[in-house]
Amino acid sequence: MYVAQPIEWTDRGVVMLDQRRLPAEEISYTYTDYREIAKAIREMVIRGAPAIGVAAAMGVALGVLHSAAKSVDALRSELSEICDKQGMVEEAKQVHLEKKATDESIGRFGAEFMPREGQVMTQCNAGALATGGIGTALGVIRVAFEQGRKLHVLVPETRPYLQGARLTAWELHKGGIPLTLITDNMVGHFLKTGKVGAIVTGADRIAANGDTANKIGTYQIAVLAKENSVPFYIAAPVSTFDLSIPDGGHIPIEERSAGEVTHLQGVRIAPDVHAAHPAFDVTPAKYIAAIFTERGVARAPYKESLRALAEMSQQHLASRG
Amino acid sequence: MYVAQPIEWTDRGVVMLDQRRLPAEEISYTYTDYREIAKAIREMVIRGAPAIGVAAAMGVALGVLHSAAKSVDALRSELSEICDKQGMVEEAKQVHLEKKATDESIGRFGAEFMPREGQVMTQCNAGALATGGIGTALGVIRVAFEQGRKLHVLVPETRPYLQGARLTAWELHKGGIPLTLITDNMVGHFLKTGKVGAIVTGADRIAANGDTANKIGTYQIAVLAKENSVPFYIAAPVSTFDLSIPDGGHIPIEERSAGEVTHLQGVRIAPDVHAAHPAFDVTPAKYIAAIFTERGVARAPYKESLRALAEMSQQHLASRG
Repeated sequence: MYVAQPIEWTDRGVVMLDQRRLPAEEISYTYTDYREIAKAIREMVIRGAPAIGVAAAMGVALGVLHSAAKSVDALRSELSEICDKQGMVEEAKQVHLEKKATDESIGRFGAEFMPREGQVMTQCNAGALATGGIGTALGVIRVAFEQGRKLHVLVPETRPYLQGARLTAWELHKGGIPLTLITDNMVGHFLKTGKVGAIVTGADRIAANGDTANKIGTYQIAVLAKENSVPFYIAAPVSTFDLSIPDGGHIPIEERSAGEVTHLQGVRIAPDVHAAHPAFDVTPAKYIAAIFTERGVARAPYKESLRALAEMSQQHLASRG
Repeated sequence: MYVAQPIEWTDRGVVMLDQRRLPAEEISYTYTDYREIAKAIREMVIRGAPAIGVAAAMGVALGVLHSAAKSVDALRSELSEICDKQGMVEEAKQVHLEKKATDESIGRFGAEFMPREGQVMTQCNAGALATGGIGTALGVIRVAFEQGRKLHVLVPETRPYLQGARLTAWELHKGGIPLTLITDNMVGHFLKTGKVGAIVTGADRIAANGDTANKIGTYQIAVLAKENSVPFYIAAPVSTFDLSIPDGGHIPIEERSAGEVTHLQGVRIAPDVHAAHPAFDVTPAKYIAAIFTERGVARAPYKESLRALAEMSQQHLASRG
């Protein structure tokens, strides 16, 4: 099955798919300068927290490889923590491989919670384009589909940046998984009238009590799921846990450009008025039926279950060290 | 204060503001042929159930005025229920005046329920552009604002047709009422974190038990309002009551073109995938705190309160007859 490759390390350089131009055009760039990578991240050529992490690692590797530093000492003083160039490249490749393994593990744990057949829903794009693997939330759907579950995916478009319409719809379409694209204000109607068996989304950050920050719109989908007795799940790697944050009230919400609300792909769709653009919202843990991670499945009470998974992760890392 | 005129009967013909081009351009057409009016309604030059009613009445009046029927008998056989041409024109003007009076009355009843200051929210466009008067839901906000209430209106853009972004934002901006435009998936976030005092929307059809069909997205706003203890109101004329329908389960939902979901103002925003476009949804009465009409305010149990208002209306009509 087709899995989108948002980023790849090649002999020619770092190859990145331009996600801003999807689905209209499938264009890739080859970067050989770390400053180009930084620019690509800023301009959202690549997106999704895990994929951005991969890009940043590859960018540092490029920077070291092509550094203009006159001496190794000069380079070492710039990047004192890096032992050698080849090691950094390997590290970047390794990060990518680990992301892939993480996604596949999340997918296997989560797939068990998907219905045998019928509709499921996701939000934004927590797919291959966002992670560099098979995706987190979309990875769950993908594994379940490959297991033979007859799923049909409802995809809210996810304004203002349209990650659902542009990226998730494109990934599912490419992967041969049936879908129906809807606008964000149709979610409630389909949960009330349709037979939706499960909802699964990604996460940007998960607090110690299970409150989850994710793309704007996630909170209201979770509320509508509860009201209509549809289980709402989060699929995310343990690295998104932030157990130093007690609850969602302490997660700051990034405010992005209001121009993305008043304009769509450069076309003005509203008069010159004030607009708001909180990029994320916080879904309280009480709306979350379970959290799928690469180490297993967390359930309420999350304070205990998340800590147990986080410690399992640390033991794993310690045994590798 | 500026009140948009979506349609007007003039000596030159029926003048209609092209709502599809708002807010980018303010263009009006003058129609002298009823077939042009029919086409304008089909193509959504004008929208909103009350305004479409006004347009239809004016269209019939034009048709009679400019009929090519060779004889009055021929015309009468076409339109046997019409007594004379001038009467029809007067009737069309009268319908328009009544719509205006209706809106103003709804506005006065509903304004009492608006907060003295702070944020309120609406949905879609139930404003002057939709009714030909001051609007229903926006009429409530307008009257409250004119009473000196310091309101700030949160306006969800209302995909796919963007009536909120294009029309409601434009009307409020023109009227000097402060607003913030948001995308439809931000509604929950603002209800949870903001201090929203009330929500008021229009209605397409209200069943005997109070279940209300309105623009897609209304249902989920009502659920999110309940979850966050924000009162959710409907503002609509008694003519939207359909007491022959026992409940919302019997209201058919119109499915419109999926192309409006996959495209935005002619620009493709999604790959060539299946998309759904239910134009309306049904909000169960249990989410509705009150219904503002031109005859007064209905509260639960709606079966009794709606019937009482409907009968009041009939008595009023009988006393006029």
